[in-house]
Amino acid sequence: MLIVKKFGGSSVADKERIYNVAKRCIEEYQKGNDVVVVLSAMGKTTDGLLELAKDITPNPSRRELDMLLATGEQTSAALMSMAMGALGVPAISLNAFQVMMQTSSRYGNARFKKIDTQRIRHELENRKIVIVTGFQGVNKYDDLTTLGRGGSDTTAVALAAVLHADACEIYTDVEGVYTADPRIVPNARKISEITYDEMLELATLGAKVLHNRSVEMAKKYGVQLVVRSSLNNAQGTIVKEETDMESMLVSGVAVDKNTARIAVFGVKDVPGIAFKIFDLLAKNNINVDIILQSIGGNGTKDISFTVAREDAQETVAILKEYKNRITAREIEVNDKVAKVSIVGAGMQSNPGVASRMFEALYNVGVNIRMIATSEIRITVLINEEDVDKAMRAVHDQFIED
Amino acid sequence: MLIVKKFGGSSVADKERIYNVAKRCIEEYQKGNDVVVVLSAMGKTTDGLLELAKDITPNPSRRELDMLLATGEQTSAALMSMAMGALGVPAISLNAFQVMMQTSSRYGNARFKKIDTQRIRHELENRKIVIVTGFQGVNKYDDLTTLGRGGSDTTAVALAAVLHADACEIYTDVEGVYTADPRIVPNARKISEITYDEMLELATLGAKVLHNRSVEMAKKYGVQLVVRSSLNNAQGTIVKEETDMESMLVSGVAVDKNTARIAVFGVKDVPGIAFKIFDLLAKNNINVDIILQSIGGNGTKDISFTVAREDAQETVAILKEYKNRITAREIEVNDKVAKVSIVGAGMQSNPGVASRMFEALYNVGVNIRMIATSEIRITVLINEEDVDKAMRAVHDQFIED
Repeated sequence: MLIVKKFGGSSVADKERIYNVAKRCIEEYQKGNDVVVVLSAMGKTTDGLLELAKDITPNPSRRELDMLLATGEQTSAALMSMAMGALGVPAISLNAFQVMMQTSSRYGNARFKKIDTQRIRHELENRKIVIVTGFQGVNKYDDLTTLGRGGSDTTAVALAAVLHADACEIYTDVEGVYTADPRIVPNARKISEITYDEMLELATLGAKVLHNRSVEMAKKYGVQLVVRSSLNNAQGTIVKEETDMESMLVSGVAVDKNTARIAVFGVKDVPGIAFKIFDLLAKNNINVDIILQSIGGNGTKDISFTVAREDAQETVAILKEYKNRITAREIEVNDKVAKVSIVGAGMQSNPGVASRMFEALYNVGVNIRMIATSEIRITVLINEEDVDKAMRAVHDQFIED
Repeated sequence: MLIVKKFGGSSVADKERIYNVAKRCIEEYQKGNDVVVVLSAMGKTTDGLLELAKDITPNPSRRELDMLLATGEQTSAALMSMAMGALGVPAISLNAFQVMMQTSSRYGNARFKKIDTQRIRHELENRKIVIVTGFQGVNKYDDLTTLGRGGSDTTAVALAAVLHADACEIYTDVEGVYTADPRIVPNARKISEITYDEMLELATLGAKVLHNRSVEMAKKYGVQLVVRSSLNNAQGTIVKEETDMESMLVSGVAVDKNTARIAVFGVKDVPGIAFKIFDLLAKNNINVDIILQSIGGNGTKDISFTVAREDAQETVAILKEYKNRITAREIEVNDKVAKVSIVGAGMQSNPGVASRMFEALYNVGVNIRMIATSEIRITVLINEEDVDKAMRAVHDQFIED
């Protein structure tokens, strides 16, 4: 078996943890498996390097920033290889140049284009554990690039895809994907299997276990993922195309507090106003999430929508600047709101899920301000202060212990 | 003009110094010159990385150690490029993979084999300042190597050679090469020109301005070097094949305290004993410097020689182990000694230099324990406590103010 294992920065933050990871990988190797390890930079290294750059200039060249950041994974990979060597197992670290991990040109947010497997295969044939630097690539100019958020997960999935790995294991500081945040919902439980689509919805909604990009790539190339803890041997969560059991009606409950509601009151009830508003925001790179439009009356209507909380003030400023053009009477912002969502592939064939969710919220006195749905997700916007009780109520409604 | 400038770790140790170097390079660039900058790792970075490795294991893989160490220059090069960018000048950092600096395979002590100039030329044609990581290369296995001591100087000279640079400037924290250590000899003065051979003798003898390896390469490829200060604009020392002026009789006085004298008493006065002694030491990788053999009498003789101070105890241990085989009566070590040397290309055609040196030492009561000479150098071994007055006396004898 060929197994790709990815460990994040906190899993390799110090000598003890590096040895912990080394031993786990060696266990796998000693079963006779081929092991490819993808590593992030140690602990807060990347943040430290960013600070170093910002100290030189507030706007460093993106190309040079990637050149700088790429040293982080090279450091952790080399140290990991030394640790495995000290434990008597042959290992080798490889950076983006050595593997030839070709990416698009865009510094700081590059995409994989092609990954050569020759060097890795050669080292595996020599029965070495191969340690690959996550998060980085090389573009057509022969310059180092980095992949942006979730980069090392993406590296692991991409390697698993091109190497036709038998497993791709993503190690984190939690035991897997949960039906809800266990700190808030005490009877939340670990999900044993989940579909790519469900995982994508949960990731989008703030269950920060896997980055969407890596899940999308896993889905595209049919790479089965396992999310599990780097601290113990508990069985993790398998992410795959279709779950073996009958799809859960609701797999998980997710919360996203990074949201703010913008309300635009009294715009003229004529065609094109909504277009004008959202075109303005798109041109300013502001992503809009849920949109709600009132039915209108007296020739005016109200439009409200949510944006990421850090974009709220800029959104309001833009809309106020063009207040006349969008015919708005008043613009309001509320950033004391949060999104609660239920996600489940089983929803597609089960009507009435939404009303059961609303009922659960009604029973605990939670007011719903906006609603949005996809095929496998129902999201409600509520007051932030109601989040915890809303989560518990919805979790109790759908997920049995 | 194409100018290669090399700056050591202390010259790029912090933000202020990085900007200082950036400005110096930009001045050169703004004269219309092409500028290639070779950098070491910042300050004590390399030591820090070595400690990181030693913390993982006392005997890290050399291959992985080079992988780790190479991040140091990549960091300083990226930051330098950012600083130049912030000053409005286009710059680009290139690592060993990007330049394709091919070296021998030997990790930790690799030698340059071939350097591609295409990428550097391309960037220079685009009027960029090109910043190259010193100290590192890539071997035939596509693995990172480091060059060992004096590596970044060697990188600068090698680049100057392959690029046919018009100048190769080595920036240090002193203003150039001095006739003696100014801390000990107050009237020591900066040498304006010196030959490669003189520089090699001085470097060997502890004037730590340039590493021998870089001087040897400069000599081989006829690269004229300038050693100058990164802190001011004083004219430095030019190192070249032949000095323009008539050769100085004595260019400089050097001291080397890293020496110990081993004396082997009472060995049999038969052929082959000296061979046995020095063959033993060679097999144990101990370098022997000055050798003195007594004329002998009563069928025995004494052999004494110097080794680096850190090798003294091991040398004695080896000789004692084989005491019978080398027929020695007694073995002694004295590590309170030092070498004082005068170096000058003019000596070759001027007899009597040695006796003038001995006279100067006699006049201040310094006892000479051993003597060794080359075509352009005379070295004496004296007691360590006499070093300062010996240096001053010899300097006064040969070097006019």
